[in-house]
Amino acid sequence: MTQHRIAILGASGYTGAELVRLIATHPAMRIVALSADRKAGMTMDQVFPFLRHLDLPPLVKIGEIDFSQVDLCFCALPHATTQQVINALPRDLKIVDLSADFRLRDPAEYQKWYGQPHAAVELQKEAVYGLTEFYRDEIRAARLVAGTGCNAAAGQFALRPLIAAGVIDLDDIAIDLKAGVSGAGRSLKENLLHAELSGGTHAYSAGGKHRHLGEFDQEFSKIAGRPVLVQFTPHLLPMNRGILASVYVKGDPATVHATLAGAYGDEPFVKVLPFGALPSTRDIAGSNFCHLGVIGDRIPGRAMVVSVLDNLTKGSSGQAIQNANLMLGIGETAGLMLAPVFP
Amino acid sequence: MTQHRIAILGASGYTGAELVRLIATHPAMRIVALSADRKAGMTMDQVFPFLRHLDLPPLVKIGEIDFSQVDLCFCALPHATTQQVINALPRDLKIVDLSADFRLRDPAEYQKWYGQPHAAVELQKEAVYGLTEFYRDEIRAARLVAGTGCNAAAGQFALRPLIAAGVIDLDDIAIDLKAGVSGAGRSLKENLLHAELSGGTHAYSAGGKHRHLGEFDQEFSKIAGRPVLVQFTPHLLPMNRGILASVYVKGDPATVHATLAGAYGDEPFVKVLPFGALPSTRDIAGSNFCHLGVIGDRIPGRAMVVSVLDNLTKGSSGQAIQNANLMLGIGETAGLMLAPVFP
Amino acid sequence: MTQHRIAILGASGYTGAELVRLIATHPAMRIVALSADRKAGMTMDQVFPFLRHLDLPPLVKIGEIDFSQVDLCFCALPHATTQQVINALPRDLKIVDLSADFRLRDPAEYQKWYGQPHAAVELQKEAVYGLTEFYRDEIRAARLVAGTGCNAAAGQFALRPLIAAGVIDLDDIAIDLKAGVSGAGRSLKENLLHAELSGGTHAYSAGGKHRHLGEFDQEFSKIAGRPVLVQFTPHLLPMNRGILASVYVKGDPATVHATLAGAYGDEPFVKVLPFGALPSTRDIAGSNFCHLGVIGDRIPGRAMVVSVLDNLTKGSSGQAIQNANLMLGIGETAGLMLAPVFP
Amino acid sequence: MTQHRIAILGASGYTGAELVRLIATHPAMRIVALSADRKAGMTMDQVFPFLRHLDLPPLVKIGEIDFSQVDLCFCALPHATTQQVINALPRDLKIVDLSADFRLRDPAEYQKWYGQPHAAVELQKEAVYGLTEFYRDEIRAARLVAGTGCNAAAGQFALRPLIAAGVIDLDDIAIDLKAGVSGAGRSLKENLLHAELSGGTHAYSAGGKHRHLGEFDQEFSKIAGRPVLVQFTPHLLPMNRGILASVYVKGDPATVHATLAGAYGDEPFVKVLPFGALPSTRDIAGSNFCHLGVIGDRIPGRAMVVSVLDNLTKGSSGQAIQNANLMLGIGETAGLMLAPVFP
Repeated sequence: MTQHRIAILGASGYTGAELVRLIATHPAMRIVALSADRKAGMTMDQVFPFLRHLDLPPLVKIGEIDFSQVDLCFCALPHATTQQVINALPRDLKIVDLSADFRLRDPAEYQKWYGQPHAAVELQKEAVYGLTEFYRDEIRAARLVAGTGCNAAAGQFALRPLIAAGVIDLDDIAIDLKAGVSGAGRSLKENLLHAELSGGTHAYSAGGKHRHLGEFDQEFSKIAGRPVLVQFTPHLLPMNRGILASVYVKGDPATVHATLAGAYGDEPFVKVLPFGALPSTRDIAGSNFCHLGVIGDRIPGRAMVVSVLDNLTKGSSGQAIQNANLMLGIGETAGLMLAPVFP
Repeated sequence: MTQHRIAILGASGYTGAELVRLIATHPAMRIVALSADRKAGMTMDQVFPFLRHLDLPPLVKIGEIDFSQVDLCFCALPHATTQQVINALPRDLKIVDLSADFRLRDPAEYQKWYGQPHAAVELQKEAVYGLTEFYRDEIRAARLVAGTGCNAAAGQFALRPLIAAGVIDLDDIAIDLKAGVSGAGRSLKENLLHAELSGGTHAYSAGGKHRHLGEFDQEFSKIAGRPVLVQFTPHLLPMNRGILASVYVKGDPATVHATLAGAYGDEPFVKVLPFGALPSTRDIAGSNFCHLGVIGDRIPGRAMVVSVLDNLTKGSSGQAIQNANLMLGIGETAGLMLAPVFP
Repeated sequence: MTQHRIAILGASGYTGAELVRLIATHPAMRIVALSADRKAGMTMDQVFPFLRHLDLPPLVKIGEIDFSQVDLCFCALPHATTQQVINALPRDLKIVDLSADFRLRDPAEYQKWYGQPHAAVELQKEAVYGLTEFYRDEIRAARLVAGTGCNAAAGQFALRPLIAAGVIDLDDIAIDLKAGVSGAGRSLKENLLHAELSGGTHAYSAGGKHRHLGEFDQEFSKIAGRPVLVQFTPHLLPMNRGILASVYVKGDPATVHATLAGAYGDEPFVKVLPFGALPSTRDIAGSNFCHLGVIGDRIPGRAMVVSVLDNLTKGSSGQAIQNANLMLGIGETAGLMLAPVFP
Repeated sequence: MTQHRIAILGASGYTGAELVRLIATHPAMRIVALSADRKAGMTMDQVFPFLRHLDLPPLVKIGEIDFSQVDLCFCALPHATTQQVINALPRDLKIVDLSADFRLRDPAEYQKWYGQPHAAVELQKEAVYGLTEFYRDEIRAARLVAGTGCNAAAGQFALRPLIAAGVIDLDDIAIDLKAGVSGAGRSLKENLLHAELSGGTHAYSAGGKHRHLGEFDQEFSKIAGRPVLVQFTPHLLPMNRGILASVYVKGDPATVHATLAGAYGDEPFVKVLPFGALPSTRDIAGSNFCHLGVIGDRIPGRAMVVSVLDNLTKGSSGQAIQNANLMLGIGETAGLMLAPVFP
């Protein structure tokens, strides 16, 4: 099979490492360049010993990469930095970005959620939103694809078909989300220490302040053709991988289930459980699958949709490869059918 | 200080062991009898080696206990069994029950939630609901107190003052609860194994089926003077102790906060955080404290109350001792001011 | 590629499920039959929802399988049961057994460690010990291969080359082993509950009682040409996958390292770290890799070898597939190059 | 009861917080000053919300404390800093130091293990080594007591009586230790992150490099009257509290057990299990107890002693209070009989 030449910018973070993990057994991708600014000069196995068995290029600075020898570039850098880096890359280079920088279409929304003006508005316009199942055709044709937020992906898999079908009350949607800690990245913060996080839980970015709300607002309003605001409260859990979104909606539970089952019937990665069954994050960890469950409440007209996915895979690096597969004309599922790891 | 003579029935479960742990440093209680039917004949340190340092009576069958030498009996047995056991105890014995058998006032409600008729309806009428902060006077005078469900306690601390004050919409309350695994007891079930639970999360008893809803219905409807039905979905988390209830309400956030702060201002065990701050289960583990936080949403008129407590302590055995303290005329906080254990 | 037809007996346990996980992306194996006696009639995704995305045959009783349509059979049943089952299978069927039943060559040793006489002594003689790296030729030619104990594998990777090379004191070897809980299987035991295991550790089967000692004795004595007895103490850790064996030996540390590096230089799955670097179980979880590290002590002439592998993969099901690959004439690494999952 | 006035320097670390936790229910101590240089001006509940229920003095800089109003000062600062701070404190102030600065008697040994000359050699000479059970009389009379290393405590409880009684081979002692992560303090290091540590284990400071070896050398050699060097390898485990030391010795197992049982028969905090039973860290977490178990190996003349204690309590802050109790003439166990927290 043709081996597409891949560069990964920001390879020293968790999403970078997850890209390497997945590409390691991808039949049609070969890593030719890895960047990590502060760790340039190191080898990948010094930064991530779990990749010791792979023969990988050394970590370099971005400027050292010859992009003419690269077919597609994954960009796993922090937001803000990302716009500047991508702005300086060749304009014909295929790019899948995993940061937040190109998710929002509206520069004003970007500024509102990220606190500063966007420095590459033209690119922002060009970028395609990377929720594969809903933007397949655009992604196939795209040069620059913006990976979604991991929480934003979990919530959208539960809600997009319901909003599109008009089967739920648009003014009363609450997403109570439980997130594993790898979503916070390899950053040195007190609340991410094992001693502080294990054995407990707490909410964070509550009260409508989490930045992934920008994505919910943009996407849900677009689908509905009117403004849709959801409540969204994430909680940090003592687990490394996985997101579970408990989505409270008002609508007929059976209709909600039928709508989701219909929407995802042919999807290779999104599985809808039988009505009344609810999924566990343990059943998708390490994989590109999203499991959805629907249950009705004892109060008529209320339903809960539970959506689970692995934040690093389906919520980030797996999604990125799924998009890259489309952009490179490879089969969409190539390299992504790895089964979840249990127990 | 007078040493009240204490018996614990069902000492081989987690709530029984937690009673022993707390009484070990209680200044006015002395354990004189411990029962555990299937483990009768064993010593407590064989069942719970963490209690090795204590000088405790051996485990016996209930029939072997001389209740004339007992001032107060904690009953930590399974429901259904409990009604029969308590029915056979002396009618003048002070009892704090930790099971579900005497929580519901209405025999029909008991049958609805627990699937069988109540076998001791007279006792059911006599029992006082054991949420100390709201039933102090009744508990002081009671002979039989029914400890609350641990989830039911977490939800009620968040909601009772709000319902009483009429500051939230009674028809739109959702409790999304995250529970540690010790709440399930020392039972051998596949989903409670470390290999199955650690590193993940899932909902359980969803869709309005969890039995603690019976308590919510009874108490909230009584306070409101009209039927109040809440949505309640618990999730199992990979942590041993602690409950975090995210309670979604419609009402003015500042008023919600002020109402809770006002209600609990003098309470020794219930602490309301400053407006906008939210609590963590890690901050109450191993203690009898309940922390409450309130935050407003970006959508006007919506608030979230977060309530955390340790299911084995404030949600069960700590609460039981708090009630026993009142029943025995001891200071309410005696033996219960142990600080949480962190990290 | 030719699809070899695979049966798995005992598919409802963790090693059975791990076989399915690995075969799911194996290029040359196709599962045609799955057995699980007590769960016959169920589908695999009912028993293991994480396998929901796969199209698998239903669980049946062993007697219902037509073995004439099977090229190779993995047997993941409990010991004792296994000998009887395999005794009744066609004598020309290729079998990789994951139980303890065919690991020991000497019937007396089997009886000593497993407490009962062996019921299939002829098969015991026929079986080849399945530590691939050391029995490749025999395994290629074998009909029946006996997978090793997971702890036994971890210890042997550290010690076999050292004993063979005569570079350590044979009378003073201590293996202090730390094991994840999945090694105990999906069994309902109190000490395997999350509430009992998480957040702590303890030794088990200490004092020379663990059954994998039978394998150590057999193999090490065979290599040395004289009896070799090691000390071996496993500890249970709050982790799901992984074994770390700290092996204390007397010998020159640099020689120890050089011996291991030399022995495994060409091995695809066994990686020796630079002298002085020690491995972590996190770096091999979910994979078929074994990482080895060597460090010298401040006391001259003493070294520690640390060996890590995933008990379910390299220690069990991955090893089994590696052996099956050889028996079927497939490339040894086929389907096994999945990168570890981190974080 | 007389309330002794207590100051805690370095209250923003885990051992500082553990001191506050224990003193919160101590009958004869009252906290009058808390220091935390970088967090001066904050309140304790801002740094440690789990202490929210306590009425504590604000965090100040050390210079702001009026030590004439302090009866005893706990010093929980980093080593090196500590010598300078204590050097500047009033010479008649009773001090229990929790750092490493005054553990070693010999300035040369200090320099060897800590990499710099000691800046307060006179104080070093004055200090008494704080392993209470073995230095009671000296501690009672001491002004300055040096708390032991937590690992050093775990190892010494297992070995001191055996060395003193001459029942084991002094030239062949190996301590394989498993340590919870709180021993590393509240420091922001990659390997202490939940995402990196949970679900795995690895050795650290291996090869005779861990600084607590200095204490082992000093104490064991002193007892034996000749140099004694032990092997000591710590491993980091995904648990917050607790140390388990597996100590491999050569000697008669029954004699080893009898020696330990005899040595600790009257100790309130050190419990020796029946011969053949081994302890778990879960059974001492949150408490000041140390449990010891002894088992013989199948190889005659070899035994394993397992020692467990909570690094923050018996290994550090609990020990410190035990010492302070003696120094202040309070009963040794005052405030320290809290039962472990399980599950």
